[in-house]
Amino acid sequence: MIPAPERGFTKAEFAARTVRAQTLMAEQGLDGLFLMTEPEVRYFTGFHTLFWQSPTRPWFLFVPASGKPIAVIPEIGAALMRQTWLDDIRTWSAPAPADDGLSLLVELLGPYAARGARVGVMKGHETMLRMPLGDYERLMSLLAGLKVQDATGLIRSLRMVKSEAEITKLRHICALGSDTFSSVPDFAFQGQAFEDTFRAFRRKALELGADDVPYLVGGADQGGYHDVISPPSRRPLQDGDIMMLDTGATWDGYFCDFDRNFAITRADDKSKQAYDTLWRATEAGIEAARPGATCRDLFHAMQNVISEMDDQGGDVGRLGHGLGMQLTEWPSHAAFDDTVIAENMVLTLEPSLGYGDGRIMVHEENIVVRANGAELLTRRAELELPVI
Amino acid sequence: MIPAPERGFTKAEFAARTVRAQTLMAEQGLDGLFLMTEPEVRYFTGFHTLFWQSPTRPWFLFVPASGKPIAVIPEIGAALMRQTWLDDIRTWSAPAPADDGLSLLVELLGPYAARGARVGVMKGHETMLRMPLGDYERLMSLLAGLKVQDATGLIRSLRMVKSEAEITKLRHICALGSDTFSSVPDFAFQGQAFEDTFRAFRRKALELGADDVPYLVGGADQGGYHDVISPPSRRPLQDGDIMMLDTGATWDGYFCDFDRNFAITRADDKSKQAYDTLWRATEAGIEAARPGATCRDLFHAMQNVISEMDDQGGDVGRLGHGLGMQLTEWPSHAAFDDTVIAENMVLTLEPSLGYGDGRIMVHEENIVVRANGAELLTRRAELELPVI
Repeated sequence: MIPAPERGFTKAEFAARTVRAQTLMAEQGLDGLFLMTEPEVRYFTGFHTLFWQSPTRPWFLFVPASGKPIAVIPEIGAALMRQTWLDDIRTWSAPAPADDGLSLLVELLGPYAARGARVGVMKGHETMLRMPLGDYERLMSLLAGLKVQDATGLIRSLRMVKSEAEITKLRHICALGSDTFSSVPDFAFQGQAFEDTFRAFRRKALELGADDVPYLVGGADQGGYHDVISPPSRRPLQDGDIMMLDTGATWDGYFCDFDRNFAITRADDKSKQAYDTLWRATEAGIEAARPGATCRDLFHAMQNVISEMDDQGGDVGRLGHGLGMQLTEWPSHAAFDDTVIAENMVLTLEPSLGYGDGRIMVHEENIVVRANGAELLTRRAELELPVI
Repeated sequence: MIPAPERGFTKAEFAARTVRAQTLMAEQGLDGLFLMTEPEVRYFTGFHTLFWQSPTRPWFLFVPASGKPIAVIPEIGAALMRQTWLDDIRTWSAPAPADDGLSLLVELLGPYAARGARVGVMKGHETMLRMPLGDYERLMSLLAGLKVQDATGLIRSLRMVKSEAEITKLRHICALGSDTFSSVPDFAFQGQAFEDTFRAFRRKALELGADDVPYLVGGADQGGYHDVISPPSRRPLQDGDIMMLDTGATWDGYFCDFDRNFAITRADDKSKQAYDTLWRATEAGIEAARPGATCRDLFHAMQNVISEMDDQGGDVGRLGHGLGMQLTEWPSHAAFDDTVIAENMVLTLEPSLGYGDGRIMVHEENIVVRANGAELLTRRAELELPVI
């Protein structure tokens, strides 16, 4: 088993993140950030729990212009939040549909509203409002005078660039994912129900040291699979299947996100050609992923190779994305995204192509961008489509 | 291994769900439901994928006053959605931050807005807005004239009562969870790092046939644990620890949600007493869970027993909840919830208490309410705190 790094982060790291946010807030004239989503609360506090899976309770964090963030959370989370670097933790007995934190928020933000302060809320691409819309509307009416500004860009710019401690966690889970994929020929076999392949994959990843495998999708069909987001069926793996497994496994709250393709007993020529095309497209992406290039550049570098063979155009919408506390994060390797790639961004390179009869093939690696180019976090896929 | 039931649902079930929704919509004067959250989209279509874990793309479903629902989704999901009973599937190449489905939504809902129609959106308790708030605001300004009404109550009333096919899935995953908990003494031991106990639990649940174990939290400490939502540490299980594991495992997209307590090598008297109190509180809940009783009744039935010993009051906020496609669903067993319990509701009974020095103990079973009372879906916890 690969030795695991330390869990968690130093208090200094949270303090540094907060100061970076506050510097940007000052530049943008923001008096505070009002946050409510899991990765953002964790980013500034270290508060880490799977309890977010329950939709029942909202959780709030306010980052003021200076000083530590302030948590406004259900009492059930108080013991865990007290283990973080925060000092000011305000709680209520939730759920309480009539007042699920609103009074506490009005108490905190009322003075900001009274002076017409500007507060950032995440309203942009790849965000959601993780509180009831009705409560949000009610809160805003109670805070009349507050100027709400979209803070997606600010948060995005912070979270896209990873610290070395974050990269260490990402490297670890990518290594565990690579080892799991290397074991696929040991546990997958012709005749195995595809859902059992999934179970075996998850069990192997856990055995190797992953905390969990929250994301696992895939496809398997004769001469190629047809979609890339399905849960598995009971259909047994068959001679001539092309099988793909795409996993988001986690360690200490950080994701890998990559896939591998396998042929069952034999590989058809078209699929071998698709595999080779995607392998080379990924190689072009690795080469292009340098500080100063844009995500659009990266997209075109991969697309140029893919277009040798692709018969459908980019209907998966993009050829990779950011990676960290979420399975997918900003930016997007797409023609619309002119984000400039910076050192210590962690990215997926995920070219895909359609080939005949609606078959699709995907291929994915995870990298961290360094001063002189991409460092692979995943162990590079085999040069030729492996046969099981 | 327990034989698994069939996956999925018949088209007739989705049709019946839709007609039930449309009947309620007619009663409430609603011309449509505009939905965007995973359980709701799945409830009306059967569209089932882990891809919702990626926050990048929004997914929309519109349920008109009559006829089948209409999907407005990213192209990457088209192949999977075409396998459902829907006919009208409209897609765009997402992500597309400049227009992530909005044009398609305006095309669909514009005529509704033009005639001042009333459309339901989920804005209430335990909901969230799973699209960027900025896009929602923009959409509403493009659909000026549309009357938006909170549809939480409507959806809640449908989803709280399960069909026999849903109950079959829930019974299966609860049985797998029970078998996994029965195996804990086989894989947990004094000296084991608690995070490895978690890995062993997940691996066992998968081995027994669970699709996944997305939720697993717990605690272990001398004479009792202190919080109930933490991820595990590397701390080894020690002589005199009280350990709790609380799992949400899934099968075919349905959750169990229950926990079990164990003492490591020996149990202290206080913890034994807490366990006994909670066991009897659960028994009172099982007895009280009958059609016609309210969730408040259920709460008080359990609270009356808990109060023999509890020293902190109900700071977890409630003593159980609904269960189904989500780890936690409406209703809540709490003083604020006067929901009348109905036949075929699937519920958790989850009494908890504080005892000395901030220690907490929780206890949980899953039931389905039948005409003549509760039917246990989980195998009842042992009468006395088990010692490993």
